[in-house]
Amino acid sequence: MKKILNDPNAYVDEMLDGLCIAHPELRRTGEDGRVIVRSRGAVAGKVGIVTGGGSGHLPVFLGYVGEGLLDACAVGNVFAGPRMSDCIEAMRAADGGAGVLQLYGNYGGDRMNFDMATEMLELEGMRVASVRVADDVASAPAAQREKRRGVAGLVLVYKAAGAKAASGASLDEVAALARRANDACRSIGVALTPCVVPESGKASFEIGENDVEFGMGIHGEPGIWRGALKTADALADEMLAHVLPELALARGDRVAVLVNSLGATPAEELYILYRRVAQVLGERGIGIVRPLVGRYATSMEMAGASLSVMKLDDELEALLAAPAECPFWSVR
Amino acid sequence: MKKILNDPNAYVDEMLDGLCIAHPELRRTGEDGRVIVRSRGAVAGKVGIVTGGGSGHLPVFLGYVGEGLLDACAVGNVFAGPRMSDCIEAMRAADGGAGVLQLYGNYGGDRMNFDMATEMLELEGMRVASVRVADDVASAPAAQREKRRGVAGLVLVYKAAGAKAASGASLDEVAALARRANDACRSIGVALTPCVVPESGKASFEIGENDVEFGMGIHGEPGIWRGALKTADALADEMLAHVLPELALARGDRVAVLVNSLGATPAEELYILYRRVAQVLGERGIGIVRPLVGRYATSMEMAGASLSVMKLDDELEALLAAPAECPFWSVR
Repeated sequence: MKKILNDPNAYVDEMLDGLCIAHPELRRTGEDGRVIVRSRGAVAGKVGIVTGGGSGHLPVFLGYVGEGLLDACAVGNVFAGPRMSDCIEAMRAADGGAGVLQLYGNYGGDRMNFDMATEMLELEGMRVASVRVADDVASAPAAQREKRRGVAGLVLVYKAAGAKAASGASLDEVAALARRANDACRSIGVALTPCVVPESGKASFEIGENDVEFGMGIHGEPGIWRGALKTADALADEMLAHVLPELALARGDRVAVLVNSLGATPAEELYILYRRVAQVLGERGIGIVRPLVGRYATSMEMAGASLSVMKLDDELEALLAAPAECPFWSVR
Repeated sequence: MKKILNDPNAYVDEMLDGLCIAHPELRRTGEDGRVIVRSRGAVAGKVGIVTGGGSGHLPVFLGYVGEGLLDACAVGNVFAGPRMSDCIEAMRAADGGAGVLQLYGNYGGDRMNFDMATEMLELEGMRVASVRVADDVASAPAAQREKRRGVAGLVLVYKAAGAKAASGASLDEVAALARRANDACRSIGVALTPCVVPESGKASFEIGENDVEFGMGIHGEPGIWRGALKTADALADEMLAHVLPELALARGDRVAVLVNSLGATPAEELYILYRRVAQVLGERGIGIVRPLVGRYATSMEMAGASLSVMKLDDELEALLAAPAECPFWSVR
């Protein structure tokens, strides 16, 4: 695997520099520039939403800082959580006086740092709520949902919570909505090839020439099974079989669907997958609203894809349709 | 290289099905559904713009059918040109009575079929103009510009011509604008890994573990040199050294810049490249307007990147900024 870079240890900072030059609506702040905020600053009276996580997943996490979405992001090294000091800085930058929602993927290191940041800032009088997205059904059984990792479903939760905050809702209301969006969302991924973490120069995992790992996490965390690559339709069917049951969908229900490339897998193949997903949901009488097919949460050049499904109610549907704008996504 | 698909021979048609289900503003038409048109049909009185080309390059070509962009696209198999009958069908579908501009990348097979389609339809009284985009500086010397291939610069020309047509300009005016945009645009690519053409199951080319091919085309056409992969900054400098001279830029000039992934190369690395491009242009006093960094013209899972630069005048700048909307891109 080959990468276009200069110094591997400068990968993240040079990426952040390029991103903020290309998108002047974002800027770097914090001690080492590892916090991405909106250039126009916090919105007075609006609940601020902060996220954070390792680099290497663009557009996740920092790419969703924008209008109708997030206010700030604490940025770690590739596949490594952000520092506590940057979580604090992100929260300060996002605070418009109406409190701050921490909204991030459920990973132990991120949680520890965000929790410590909360303790610090609550002492200063900031109102803080926290929701950890845990949509990856492959990462723990349903009975232990709190142990599941956050993957691409995070994007749908960002969108819903961002729109709720933009509507002028209170911190409690935005946090409750984010929790409800998370409860309504399930994801699963399949990985075909690893990616290379620049700082280590090593592949994130190893996998045979013709194999797929079903249920693998976005950092190469072990999945459910590993074996010969199946057809797109068989993969889609099996992904749906893991994602749908907990959502208890009935004929007439509506869902948001995200078919996401982990990086190298091209759009062409996402549409082949989506074709089957739409077919199966259609046969069950389930309506797909505003499907997303593309690269929304990646692992650099990893080949593979994930499927996220969110069960909608009227409010979630309206929030997903509300206008939003960030460097990687535009909803109108 | 692994691909998510069912029958390799159904790759294109299943992709088109999925795409049109996900984006109901597009639909398949033509004898075998190999023409993509806007569902709402041709716009009466507007110059229609048609394109065409092989599959495997999403969002190019068909992905740019949309508001303020293209009206129809004739779709070939992966890396294979569209049939003449589909070129004809695309032109008929795009014709709103004000004539049709054929706007496509300069490849021999595509040209032959579009030229034959023109002869047929002119006999029926359709007014047709044709502009072939030839932005790839690596594919022929400046003295033989008409032999150069079209690569990612096509996207900028689509955008400018699409906005011109949407403004109500005549066929002659839209064609002249498209020619001017093409004349103002230069591109070059670097390839790090091949992709697999599904129908053949074979890699598009072979390249050593640590090598890059500088100037390679999007189907694996030979480039300028092959050797050890350089740093991102060195690649950017060399790409600029090939792209800039023919544009004769002076301090105070403005350009559009597109840093494009050929597929697997992640957004992170595009921003590292863009950082250097912006640095060099900034030092020369050249202003970058609305930079594009992302996947705009790919070769499925090929790793690599391309750089396109278009020298702007006031009209081109305004046309690139005009509202547009297609499944892969939104300008507002």
